[in-house]
Amino acid sequence: MTQVAINESGNILVLDHNREQFRFHAVWLRDNAWDTETRSPSNGQRLIALRDIDPKVQISAAAVEGTTLKITFSPENKDVDYSIDWLIANAYDRPRVSEKGWLADSIETWDAMLNENVPSADFNHIASDPSAKRAWLESVARYGFGKLSGGPAEDQALMKVVQLFGFVRETNYGRHFEVRTEVNPTNLAFTGLGLQAHTDNPYRDPVPTIQVLYCLESSAAGGENMVVDGFKAAMRLKNENSAWFDVLSRYCAKFEYAGEKGVALTSRRPMIELAPDGELIAVRFNNRSAAAITDVPFEDMALYYEAYRRLGEIIDDTAMEVTFRLEPGECFIVDNTRVLHARKAYSGTGSRWLQGCYADKDGLLSTLASLQSSVQEAAE
Amino acid sequence: MTQVAINESGNILVLDHNREQFRFHAVWLRDNAWDTETRSPSNGQRLIALRDIDPKVQISAAAVEGTTLKITFSPENKDVDYSIDWLIANAYDRPRVSEKGWLADSIETWDAMLNENVPSADFNHIASDPSAKRAWLESVARYGFGKLSGGPAEDQALMKVVQLFGFVRETNYGRHFEVRTEVNPTNLAFTGLGLQAHTDNPYRDPVPTIQVLYCLESSAAGGENMVVDGFKAAMRLKNENSAWFDVLSRYCAKFEYAGEKGVALTSRRPMIELAPDGELIAVRFNNRSAAAITDVPFEDMALYYEAYRRLGEIIDDTAMEVTFRLEPGECFIVDNTRVLHARKAYSGTGSRWLQGCYADKDGLLSTLASLQSSVQEAAE
Repeated sequence: MTQVAINESGNILVLDHNREQFRFHAVWLRDNAWDTETRSPSNGQRLIALRDIDPKVQISAAAVEGTTLKITFSPENKDVDYSIDWLIANAYDRPRVSEKGWLADSIETWDAMLNENVPSADFNHIASDPSAKRAWLESVARYGFGKLSGGPAEDQALMKVVQLFGFVRETNYGRHFEVRTEVNPTNLAFTGLGLQAHTDNPYRDPVPTIQVLYCLESSAAGGENMVVDGFKAAMRLKNENSAWFDVLSRYCAKFEYAGEKGVALTSRRPMIELAPDGELIAVRFNNRSAAAITDVPFEDMALYYEAYRRLGEIIDDTAMEVTFRLEPGECFIVDNTRVLHARKAYSGTGSRWLQGCYADKDGLLSTLASLQSSVQEAAE
Repeated sequence: MTQVAINESGNILVLDHNREQFRFHAVWLRDNAWDTETRSPSNGQRLIALRDIDPKVQISAAAVEGTTLKITFSPENKDVDYSIDWLIANAYDRPRVSEKGWLADSIETWDAMLNENVPSADFNHIASDPSAKRAWLESVARYGFGKLSGGPAEDQALMKVVQLFGFVRETNYGRHFEVRTEVNPTNLAFTGLGLQAHTDNPYRDPVPTIQVLYCLESSAAGGENMVVDGFKAAMRLKNENSAWFDVLSRYCAKFEYAGEKGVALTSRRPMIELAPDGELIAVRFNNRSAAAITDVPFEDMALYYEAYRRLGEIIDDTAMEVTFRLEPGECFIVDNTRVLHARKAYSGTGSRWLQGCYADKDGLLSTLASLQSSVQEAAE
């Protein structure tokens, strides 16, 4: 049961749908019209700008017909039809979470319990079956990481992984980089040292949002991979002491990398990044490339270091970590804005050879959304 | 004249340098030691994590010797030397700008006055002369855009421009894209329509931070390019009414693009983006790909639309725009997080063929910083 009403001045419409009321402004409705003069039928882009809408736009008439809301705008005298379902789905007159650190519904945080249920799939299966690919990408979006097995153990096989969902982000490390012991490493990743769990390249802005690590050889002792959910760690920090969470999100840290000739990368971003409305959107944590923190006032620096230390302890807590060993032809991908990765030290005997590359999450989420909508269309 | 003192508990050091006092915490100093056990001498990365520093770290002794500060830390009993110049440059015990929308010193905002002095260079000159390249990159960093002329008018010449400073960001549009009139355009950019000044691809997250547009043919009437400083526009909005600036920075807009098969890109980011400490770091403005705004509460939506409309009017104001016409072999690059670009409509007679691509600003700033430090080293 849907009813519609307009206020006296015609600038607000009230939709009463299944006993819930949603108010809409005339200008919002006009801006979001989907008629062919407002939106390109072929590519969905808006053909007008806000300057083309009269600032005095009003609703002169409105009526419900089945699942359609019919509106006439004045002074344009323009009729536009809206899907009531679309309006309800996009209604902005609703209660909101205001707590800092809220997460989108599509995200689920995790700890070591996920060891029992690591999001995994077979490379050939997801390469050939769109619904298997959709399911794996959904779990990558939900958990921020995923494993693949059964891929080819051959040079640059990781490019085939990226092609499943997006595009490589080329950097000064190349389109891909070799992760194995080097004699004069430009980066400590290229040694046998254990590495504390970290996000990659926080000195880059924008940071690469996806990392792929693909195993080609794995006979050395040690070198297991670990992943930690940075969002879970940040929320645990907040639950222990919200002042710690606040200080790491309120001030920018600095990161830098200048380990090779011609490269001097720096960034100024918080360790815990929130959207302006408090959504937790990114974590940056990397002891190797953290630069001197100079944007925290003296009065808050002791608290800042306390919080930074405690966040590190939470990240190091084995109750947080998911551990696995990559065999040749296996790989994992992480959402580098959220999930930290680490590796245990490994010995000089035997070999350990991984190839890594960066890519972007928007491409992955776009591929996923497109797969989801084709499945939905097929079901309709 | 430099003097040093330690407080009673040994957790704070006071440096008195030319009659200015700077306080430092023991943990900050220890974390930022540059000895070879703390930092890799070859690549500058930190070899320890915060967990390796005793939470009870104290300064047991400190002394100034010439331009060096010598500190002994307990309970480690570790001696570390610091450059006093480095400490002063990184001192965090100083007054701060707290006003929202502050800008880094390296940035200068502009309006149509810059038409007299468009940051320009010759392609071959900057390709062969590092100091000319440094000067041009400095002006791109300062103004958020720059022109190049005298380049080859050949297919993919824009790749040579990107190679001067960084790496291409590949997207669903390819490593580069053709900007000319198409019969069934996937994007309105590929028509002869005039386009309101906009930033590109706000539906991508992270957004491409650099765009290059390179001209190969230009005999059609019209099609001039315009650029507008989004930071100047945002600050003008703030000066007119700070509530407008606040509402556009406090809430996320939404952007989307699904104009081709297999692509469904969406983002949720504010039109005016601030760092947590108020620095103005990005502007997103694009009528074609703005999706329904649903994250503004009903109570603030009228104000939001008022602000959005006024920002558009400021952007459209000819007093804000720098206009030029690209001839074959000429190109311009913009900082796509800051500078909006537009083009005037062009006719069907004659031809207009541009190639465009995306790249990242961190690579450009890294190349610039590296050139600046080599020039400095050469001068020392």
